[in-house]
Amino acid sequence: MRFPVTPPTVRDKLLFTPGPLTTSLSVKQAMLHDAGSWHFEFNAVVANLRERLLALAGLSRGSGWETILLQGSGTFGVESVFATCVPPDGKVGVLANGAYGERMLLMLQRHKTNHIAIRSPENVPNDPGGLDKILAEDKTITHVAVVHCETTTGILNPIADIGKIVKRHGRIYIVDAMSSFGAIPIDFNDAAIDFLISSANKCIEGVPGFSFVICRRDALMSCEGFARSLSLDLVDQIKGFEKNGQFRYTPPTHSILAFQQAMNELDEEGGVPGRGARYQRNHQVLVDGMKKLGFRVYLDPKVQSCIITAFHFPNDPKFEFGEFYRLLSDKGFIIYPGKISQADTFRIGSVGRIFEADIRGLLAAIGETLDEMGIQLKPGN
Amino acid sequence: MRFPVTPPTVRDKLLFTPGPLTTSLSVKQAMLHDAGSWHFEFNAVVANLRERLLALAGLSRGSGWETILLQGSGTFGVESVFATCVPPDGKVGVLANGAYGERMLLMLQRHKTNHIAIRSPENVPNDPGGLDKILAEDKTITHVAVVHCETTTGILNPIADIGKIVKRHGRIYIVDAMSSFGAIPIDFNDAAIDFLISSANKCIEGVPGFSFVICRRDALMSCEGFARSLSLDLVDQIKGFEKNGQFRYTPPTHSILAFQQAMNELDEEGGVPGRGARYQRNHQVLVDGMKKLGFRVYLDPKVQSCIITAFHFPNDPKFEFGEFYRLLSDKGFIIYPGKISQADTFRIGSVGRIFEADIRGLLAAIGETLDEMGIQLKPGN
Repeated sequence: MRFPVTPPTVRDKLLFTPGPLTTSLSVKQAMLHDAGSWHFEFNAVVANLRERLLALAGLSRGSGWETILLQGSGTFGVESVFATCVPPDGKVGVLANGAYGERMLLMLQRHKTNHIAIRSPENVPNDPGGLDKILAEDKTITHVAVVHCETTTGILNPIADIGKIVKRHGRIYIVDAMSSFGAIPIDFNDAAIDFLISSANKCIEGVPGFSFVICRRDALMSCEGFARSLSLDLVDQIKGFEKNGQFRYTPPTHSILAFQQAMNELDEEGGVPGRGARYQRNHQVLVDGMKKLGFRVYLDPKVQSCIITAFHFPNDPKFEFGEFYRLLSDKGFIIYPGKISQADTFRIGSVGRIFEADIRGLLAAIGETLDEMGIQLKPGN
Repeated sequence: MRFPVTPPTVRDKLLFTPGPLTTSLSVKQAMLHDAGSWHFEFNAVVANLRERLLALAGLSRGSGWETILLQGSGTFGVESVFATCVPPDGKVGVLANGAYGERMLLMLQRHKTNHIAIRSPENVPNDPGGLDKILAEDKTITHVAVVHCETTTGILNPIADIGKIVKRHGRIYIVDAMSSFGAIPIDFNDAAIDFLISSANKCIEGVPGFSFVICRRDALMSCEGFARSLSLDLVDQIKGFEKNGQFRYTPPTHSILAFQQAMNELDEEGGVPGRGARYQRNHQVLVDGMKKLGFRVYLDPKVQSCIITAFHFPNDPKFEFGEFYRLLSDKGFIIYPGKISQADTFRIGSVGRIFEADIRGLLAAIGETLDEMGIQLKPGN
């Protein structure tokens, strides 16, 4: 029952998922140290990472921005923004075209916070024009929340166009950029973002353990007293950092050391443009190869991100996804094990420490697997 | 600004803190793998750890018990119990004699959950007799919460005696055993515990990233619909495990692999009795040595745990704690960097992958540091 089943000299199976991802060995090796979470040396690392994340976003503390790290997964980070920043009489408009937008609605239900769902079909981007009308009609909406890259399908939502509408109506704008930040450029000022949430184990290629919120300081500090939770209170969390440099509660020290190394490796790859270019190549090689094998992509390429790609199930009665998944796993390739969209699709990620050669290896394994399953598809182009 | 400042061939500074702790190299090496958080191999590890934690507690699923792992620090785990399990008209009696009891009260304030503080002085254990009277008088109290080892001072509270009172009055009993579970024996049935919370990075000697809740299944499942948070909803969390073996939201995969190795090493050390015996020896060597150096312990030995020990500041105007701390850090020893109790004390932990020899090394460094500071104490015995 020990993990991994294979001895450690054998390479781990590669992950083609929306995260946790395959990370570099050097990122993992950074975890071979125990840091004291109250110690000044560790605090200096945390302070430095908070600054570096702002720089990665093209922002700075001097111009009124802050980064707050929060223990837990990305979902904890998204929930912390709603739990901290919506006043008791606030109302959140949630643009939803997938599971992560729906998850935001669930959070607001638990908080008993007033909200409205503004849904689009899963294969259609959120509509800024529609939002404009809704905000004009409903003046009680105080906040608008959107998912940048909705990994349910891999669709990319137009966060800058939406942000301009939100700003024109004077509402607060919350962007879940979990799976895009670090690889897809985001202009915070152009998009008029107030709060953006992402996570250690996505495009920055760290390991899971914490999320982070990049926000306008005044937007955050005006929320004192609203918090519905202690652990998820971002105002308290930043006050902790500012009081003594420490997390209020035990941080995932090893994940943070890994993240520091991941940030170094992101710099070495050329920052957001360099990382994005690799993911784009990965995605293109994947799509080209899958089409050759006879698969069809789910989304219109115009709205498709380079992060994760959904493919239709082949139209063959011999195709059973569970078997397909297991046969790929046996060959050392792990794709996302199931669908969360309403359409019959499966998903393959292009992110993490994987390269064109790994994508080609995956494509070869998929071809072999189809043969083993006795499935013959008509190659596309 | 990279951590550690020293090259990796040099040993990390040893941590004499209440956690995160110094862990074994083999525990950290277990993190040199990337696991797919939805993958069946990883799910099997999680399922196995949930069973092993119950076995460590002397319990089983067959007899009506469950373990739920939750992302985030121990505080997230404690808050998740309050957020999930107290009905809207519930009222929690919190026994408090330190910072962690006070933290419970803060959580309940944020949730706007009715509560009452039942305080004792920091150097006096919670009083079962006093609780008996309060529960007899106030029938609206539905839950009683207590901290087993209050690391503010290192005091051990009498959770079994308290539990018998709580059970006699038919209330729900919540025990924060963050810093005791795994090293101090706990008889769940004798103490009539309904919910117990602990964390990966305490006496089990894993790395931080998640907490766990051990609870009576019927006590948990009767709470459906109460949750004030999505991320911290334990009913939803267990339903996720039972639906497909997965965490609902990204788990700290590396911390979990480290925890599996930590559980193996706890078994090898002889389980709770073996681990507890080492900590007890560490504590005794520490106290004996500190007394010889002229320090005085804060607590009556009858109520003192073997986890962490508070010492009075020396009665010498040349003693400045910040300097004392830094000089010890320079020598490779990190103690807790500040006091959280009301008395002028500092604290030294006996837990983690540290042994008598490490305690003796710390004692020698403390002696040298006193010399450097020009402080002469009168040796005790």
